[in-house]
Amino acid sequence: MKKRNMKIMGVGRYFPNRIVTAEEMDELLGVKSGWVAKKSGVLTRYFAESETITQMGALAAKEALEDAGLTLHDIDCIVSASGTMEQAIPCTAALLYRELGAQQHRGIPAFDINSTCLSFVTALDQVSYLIELGRYRHVLIVSSEIASVGLNWKQKESASLFGDGAAAVVVGPTSQEDASCILASRMETYPEGAHLTEIRGGGSKYHPRKYEGEVDWNDFLFDMDGEAVFRLSLRYLPSFLEKLFSSVDAQPDFHMDQLRWVVPHQASKLAMKIMQRRLKIPEDRMLMLVEKYGNNIAASIPIGLYEIIRNKQLQRGDTCLLLGTSAGLSLGGMVLVY
Amino acid sequence: MKKRNMKIMGVGRYFPNRIVTAEEMDELLGVKSGWVAKKSGVLTRYFAESETITQMGALAAKEALEDAGLTLHDIDCIVSASGTMEQAIPCTAALLYRELGAQQHRGIPAFDINSTCLSFVTALDQVSYLIELGRYRHVLIVSSEIASVGLNWKQKESASLFGDGAAAVVVGPTSQEDASCILASRMETYPEGAHLTEIRGGGSKYHPRKYEGEVDWNDFLFDMDGEAVFRLSLRYLPSFLEKLFSSVDAQPDFHMDQLRWVVPHQASKLAMKIMQRRLKIPEDRMLMLVEKYGNNIAASIPIGLYEIIRNKQLQRGDTCLLLGTSAGLSLGGMVLVY
Repeated sequence: MKKRNMKIMGVGRYFPNRIVTAEEMDELLGVKSGWVAKKSGVLTRYFAESETITQMGALAAKEALEDAGLTLHDIDCIVSASGTMEQAIPCTAALLYRELGAQQHRGIPAFDINSTCLSFVTALDQVSYLIELGRYRHVLIVSSEIASVGLNWKQKESASLFGDGAAAVVVGPTSQEDASCILASRMETYPEGAHLTEIRGGGSKYHPRKYEGEVDWNDFLFDMDGEAVFRLSLRYLPSFLEKLFSSVDAQPDFHMDQLRWVVPHQASKLAMKIMQRRLKIPEDRMLMLVEKYGNNIAASIPIGLYEIIRNKQLQRGDTCLLLGTSAGLSLGGMVLVY
Repeated sequence: MKKRNMKIMGVGRYFPNRIVTAEEMDELLGVKSGWVAKKSGVLTRYFAESETITQMGALAAKEALEDAGLTLHDIDCIVSASGTMEQAIPCTAALLYRELGAQQHRGIPAFDINSTCLSFVTALDQVSYLIELGRYRHVLIVSSEIASVGLNWKQKESASLFGDGAAAVVVGPTSQEDASCILASRMETYPEGAHLTEIRGGGSKYHPRKYEGEVDWNDFLFDMDGEAVFRLSLRYLPSFLEKLFSSVDAQPDFHMDQLRWVVPHQASKLAMKIMQRRLKIPEDRMLMLVEKYGNNIAASIPIGLYEIIRNKQLQRGDTCLLLGTSAGLSLGGMVLVY
């Protein structure tokens, strides 16, 4: 079964108060004026200073609940879908639930799904099967990311790309008049790229307790071979998309023209431009937000959805493609009727 | 839909080479001889010295694949279901896939599901819906845990409980003659307990880069208020189990006597003993492994399954209950026909 009936009922978003311009980043990275804007294409991004992952996620979640006309009381499951976490234990979803108001004693199940930048797409994909089969009615999915604390200022290329932010969606079942559904979804992981994008520390391999002496400080910071990641992504993306499109139920000739929008992971401006041309995505249907927000890890795609839904650029019945790559290296995509 | 047809096709397990006895733990913790055995009930546990999470998980996975009569080539999805991780990025499943042999270019989707000690039950629950609806045929679920590196030797009670280890299962669809299925499953999270079991460090809240000066070393170590966790668990467990049993399809009077085994999370010997009496679980059906292995976080439950399957104490068609609590605080349970 490929098609699942599921509706995005509400969306929410939160960006930290502190905005960081490309000019400020130039100074921070010690490069000449204009370098960040030119190299990364990111003109502004947000860095969390006082906000936590949980606080940002809860604010996005509250907006999504309100947008759906629901309260936490109506939610049957809370999924945190993020590539970064607030603390090692417990899972972020439990902390988020606490922040949203733990006094209810309703015992809403809460857990995390993680595929780094694709976490939101993976969570939405998983959850849709449980909604289709009636296990849960309304599910809250939250992606809240603080990238800034783990950036390595010596890796200027990657450090200039990322920003912090959160987004949330409430999904639920459809009624007869709704066209909303997932037409097809697909994920592929190519672990020859597992060490091309990584933070080696933080787990049992380089535990912070070994920090003094044994462990290198840089192991706790983000490390990416952007060029190699990009090459590997481009090798697999065209056939990935072909397989995704050909798996659309009852529409074996599904094609790019049927999409109102492509909502890509905002990896980097250059990578997205090349991807767009290579995959023959019409320029006016390719959602580019990287200039404004940078790469928000797993929050990028739901932030994109929020943007086009709020701006009424995506209407009920419109079809869009969520598409991205993540550390792993993984490719993920979903053809979604909003 | 509550019942899902799904079959555990193979199981695998791995324990590190280094065995640590209660007597050794007495010395390590600086307590008088016999304290650890008496207080924690854990006589032996394993600590990974040279093994990594990925290596342990891959060895367990290989055994599970062989047991199922399959190879990695037959697997459609790899889920890492662990409470601890090898490194912060990428997700553990991608690293595990690499360790299993990345050369295949098959692009098996790989991602993590995390609800700390309940991660395996949550993953099995999620995945069963995708198998039921034909998205994936064979799924490899791996729980591999290294607790030892994060233990706080000053918290003698919790430090004496945990051990390292890994377990894996291969699950797949059933054929007509199979009775195998999930009869019911349930999860409840009560975030008033979110900070009763935690490692505060490692994420963005206390990032290792703030280690010097701002951050307390102990924030990177396991911190549990065992008594409070136990009280909270006992408050919710009886009604949780009642709701789980009453949700079994077409068997509204499902009861404890229909179970061949209860496979609990091996939280601690004392807690399990009290839970057993409170929930009226017959003593000879309550699987107690905590003396031999300690608490292996999410690996405890699949290690338990491995034990009774390998010893032929659980036969095809037998019904068992997977049951546990985790940081969150979450309660999770599943009625499973093997």
